[in-house]
Amino acid sequence: MSKNSINIKEKFTKFSEHWSPRVVAEMKDYQFKLAKIEGDFVWHDHKETDEVFIVIEGSMSIEFRDGKVDLSEGEMFVVPKGVEHKPFAESECKIMFIEPRGITNTGDAGADLTVEDDVWV
Amino acid sequence: MSKNSINIKEKFTKFSEHWSPRVVAEMKDYQFKLAKIEGDFVWHDHKETDEVFIVIEGSMSIEFRDGKVDLSEGEMFVVPKGVEHKPFAESECKIMFIEPRGITNTGDAGADLTVEDDVWV
Repeated sequence: MSKNSINIKEKFTKFSEHWSPRVVAEMKDYQFKLAKIEGDFVWHDHKETDEVFIVIEGSMSIEFRDGKVDLSEGEMFVVPKGVEHKPFAESECKIMFIEPRGITNTGDAGADLTVEDDVWV
Repeated sequence: MSKNSINIKEKFTKFSEHWSPRVVAEMKDYQFKLAKIEGDFVWHDHKETDEVFIVIEGSMSIEFRDGKVDLSEGEMFVVPKGVEHKPFAESECKIMFIEPRGITNTGDAGADLTVEDDVWV
C-alpha cells in the first residue's frame, strides 16, 4: 500500500491568509505548522517552550530585544523559551514552524492576530 | 546584535558520511538532525516516539511492513511510534529528521549502522 507524503509547497497553495498558521503534521505533542507572513507580527514570548522557524520560501527577520536574525530560504532558527521576539517579513514569506500543541501564536501578548484553534491543511 | 541563523544546505557541506546523523538544533527535548543517506538502512522501530523525515535534496523511500512512501525534495512524513520502517535511497539523498534527544538511530534493531553519540555540525 502506498502511503501519502506531505508536500510542503503544495500545502501552501491551499490558503492565502497571512499570520494564519495551518497544521500539517504532528509528532507526539509537537505540531508542524505552515504560515504565510508579511509585515510585522506582535512582540511576544512563549514561557514554556522553544519555537523553531524554518524558511521555506522568501526571507524574514526575527527581532529580539537585543538584536535580530535574518533568515532566507533554507535557513532555520530556534527561539529559546521565554525570549521576546517579533517576526517580520518585508514581503510575503512562507515558513514552517514547530512548537508544542496548544501553544497560542501570540504567546500571552494577546492581539488581533491571535489564533486559538488548530486549523489543518 | 545580529544572531546567527542555521543554514541547512551549508551544514550539509561539512560532512560526507552516509547514515551518520549530525545534530543542527535542539528544541526542548527534541533534536533536529541532518543525514546523507544512500542505499538501505536497517528495519527498525522506535517504541517511544514518532519520527519526522523531511527531504532537503534528492529523493528517498521509507518501506513499511504494509507498504511504502516515496518522498521527494520538499516532502515530509511522520513515522508513528512503534511502526517498523526501513529508509532507502537509490542515490544520495539529504534529509532532516526530528526526534527526541537520546533516540538510537537503529531503534532496538542494533546494527553496524548504530550511532550512539550526538555529533553536532
